[in-house]
Amino acid sequence: MQKNRLEAFTDAIVPIIMTVLVLELGMPKTSTWQGFWAMREQLLAYAISFFLLAIVWGNHHHMFQLVQTINGLVIWANTILLFFLSFVPFATEIVNDDPNSLFSSQLYTLLFICINLAWNFLRVSLLRANRHHQVLVAALAHEPKSLITLAAFVGVFLLTFVWHEFGMIGTFLVMMLWIMPYKRIEEAMKRL
Amino acid sequence: MQKNRLEAFTDAIVPIIMTVLVLELGMPKTSTWQGFWAMREQLLAYAISFFLLAIVWGNHHHMFQLVQTINGLVIWANTILLFFLSFVPFATEIVNDDPNSLFSSQLYTLLFICINLAWNFLRVSLLRANRHHQVLVAALAHEPKSLITLAAFVGVFLLTFVWHEFGMIGTFLVMMLWIMPYKRIEEAMKRL
Amino acid sequence: MQKNRLEAFTDAIVPIIMTVLVLELGMPKTSTWQGFWAMREQLLAYAISFFLLAIVWGNHHHMFQLVQTINGLVIWANTILLFFLSFVPFATEIVNDDPNSLFSSQLYTLLFICINLAWNFLRVSLLRANRHHQVLVAALAHEPKSLITLAAFVGVFLLTFVWHEFGMIGTFLVMMLWIMPYKRIEEAMKRL
Amino acid sequence: MQKNRLEAFTDAIVPIIMTVLVLELGMPKTSTWQGFWAMREQLLAYAISFFLLAIVWGNHHHMFQLVQTINGLVIWANTILLFFLSFVPFATEIVNDDPNSLFSSQLYTLLFICINLAWNFLRVSLLRANRHHQVLVAALAHEPKSLITLAAFVGVFLLTFVWHEFGMIGTFLVMMLWIMPYKRIEEAMKRL
Repeated sequence: MQKNRLEAFTDAIVPIIMTVLVLELGMPKTSTWQGFWAMREQLLAYAISFFLLAIVWGNHHHMFQLVQTINGLVIWANTILLFFLSFVPFATEIVNDDPNSLFSSQLYTLLFICINLAWNFLRVSLLRANRHHQVLVAALAHEPKSLITLAAFVGVFLLTFVWHEFGMIGTFLVMMLWIMPYKRIEEAMKRL
Repeated sequence: MQKNRLEAFTDAIVPIIMTVLVLELGMPKTSTWQGFWAMREQLLAYAISFFLLAIVWGNHHHMFQLVQTINGLVIWANTILLFFLSFVPFATEIVNDDPNSLFSSQLYTLLFICINLAWNFLRVSLLRANRHHQVLVAALAHEPKSLITLAAFVGVFLLTFVWHEFGMIGTFLVMMLWIMPYKRIEEAMKRL
Repeated sequence: MQKNRLEAFTDAIVPIIMTVLVLELGMPKTSTWQGFWAMREQLLAYAISFFLLAIVWGNHHHMFQLVQTINGLVIWANTILLFFLSFVPFATEIVNDDPNSLFSSQLYTLLFICINLAWNFLRVSLLRANRHHQVLVAALAHEPKSLITLAAFVGVFLLTFVWHEFGMIGTFLVMMLWIMPYKRIEEAMKRL
Repeated sequence: MQKNRLEAFTDAIVPIIMTVLVLELGMPKTSTWQGFWAMREQLLAYAISFFLLAIVWGNHHHMFQLVQTINGLVIWANTILLFFLSFVPFATEIVNDDPNSLFSSQLYTLLFICINLAWNFLRVSLLRANRHHQVLVAALAHEPKSLITLAAFVGVFLLTFVWHEFGMIGTFLVMMLWIMPYKRIEEAMKRL
């Protein structure tokens, strides 16, 4: 099965999720720079969620460049990833509603743990569907970064019990690991 | 006529409908895990509608891989399918508003009966437009699953009179029939 | 210049406009079939606007299949068309807010007059950009249907002074002329 | 790396931003032409933001036609551009909320200064990624229009201290420089 419509579907849904974020930005209480400054936490949360979604998309884009074929399992793994991504605006709004609560901080971190797990399910399903494609297997089979990320997210989650506001910032810091998409993929693609 | 823009149109509208769903998720009443837990029915309804839309898209994706040519009738059949799909967020919101009402349960089931009928209209119009394409005709002409689905939906609808909340769950159970897209299509594609 | 990104842009914006419509559907006042029935005018207005946008998209899809090249003027003509299309949810909401007012009826008709004019500007700009492409020139140069449509819209507009509610229904009836996309285009394409 | 998915991503996000604008259009206070006329400033602001986004997209479309290859830096530069573009509906709503305030006027201008800077970052990153592609280098390396635009935006920003309402109109006037996409690109493409 060809991958192009699955890419198109993803390339439609991620931008919509990113733009839904902006619908939840309220208005400054007074139409002044002071009013705007008072929104700084909300704008920061918006920026963080926007860029985290962009990071996930960028890595998706890279990973799929190696993909030769997909199957039903890949479609479902991708749908589960998109499902968790679709909760990012919801979790961002909850953080904005009460940035100091333990709950909002943990929900945000937990959401990215789910995104990480869905990502790995997608990676494994791609490995199975392309098991005869040696370049993809070499690039995706042993992926320590995903495990390190998962451990780091769990660390952030535990730290929120001590420092309630840490959830979103900690998640952002962990995701910096992914800001430069898989180098191994870029190298693998040169070999193609 | 070529199918690629019709696919692009569908691949834009279904993701938007799926993401509109998340706009209708309210906020937890208190910023605590208890408040989140109190939203569990709403989150479940969101998840069900999200995955049912993904199932329809996945099957659409499979069916159109066999398609060679489209015409005006196919465009209209596809539009009618998209029209009913666009009501899924509306029906989901009604279920969330009053999950125990007979009305919301029946509306949700009735909507999927309409989606089922529109799907079959699309299938038949594709058969007519591609009548000389034997692989597609073999894969789509005799389709007992659609009729079984329709009968099952009617059964769910009747059961709601006894068990008011059954509409959404029953619809979800029936749609499990479609979670693995047409096997005959995958087999047919191997023959291409 | 190639047409594919302009098509992609249009294929993104029209579905979003169509789905924005559903965001404006309110909820039934009571969670009963009676409450649903009381929304019938609103649901009808939704259906009409959804299908009119689909008709415009279907004709756009047909017309662009003949197009070989585009230029800056075509991009602007297309943008103006999309601009007026983006007002359809706004005008639909105004009709729903007060279906019996002369204003809402006339606004809806006037909007489709603007859409008709923008369509013809797009058609003419495509003729200029593809003036050496004889099949397109033959199919698009003499287009009485556009003029008949314009005259009919003006008639609908004048009739609203007598029958206030006629605007949306009259617009819908006129647009039935466009439900089957340009036959001349389908015939022209067979000659390609 | 291929550019097509980056184009698809951009072609999804810009239309959504443009359509989000219409969600923020309120309703006329009375369902009359007088009520509609009272919205004229709001409708003008909507039209300006819609067309400015269309201008940016049109130039993006032109610039990318020359692009042969992209890399991680280009993806990030493009994401930053999209990030600032996503604030256009927010800034438009603030202008509509209080059109006479110095703040709203300056915010709108400042946003387009950020968009201009992001555009130039994207341009430079494309130059680096395609440094062996002489036609692109010739068309994009020396770009006085961007600097003139930046200077003009700063001028508009300073003028708002004297004439509070000038921000949006001044931004619109400056962007008229970009209404016809890079001529040098169209000429460069003829040489390809």
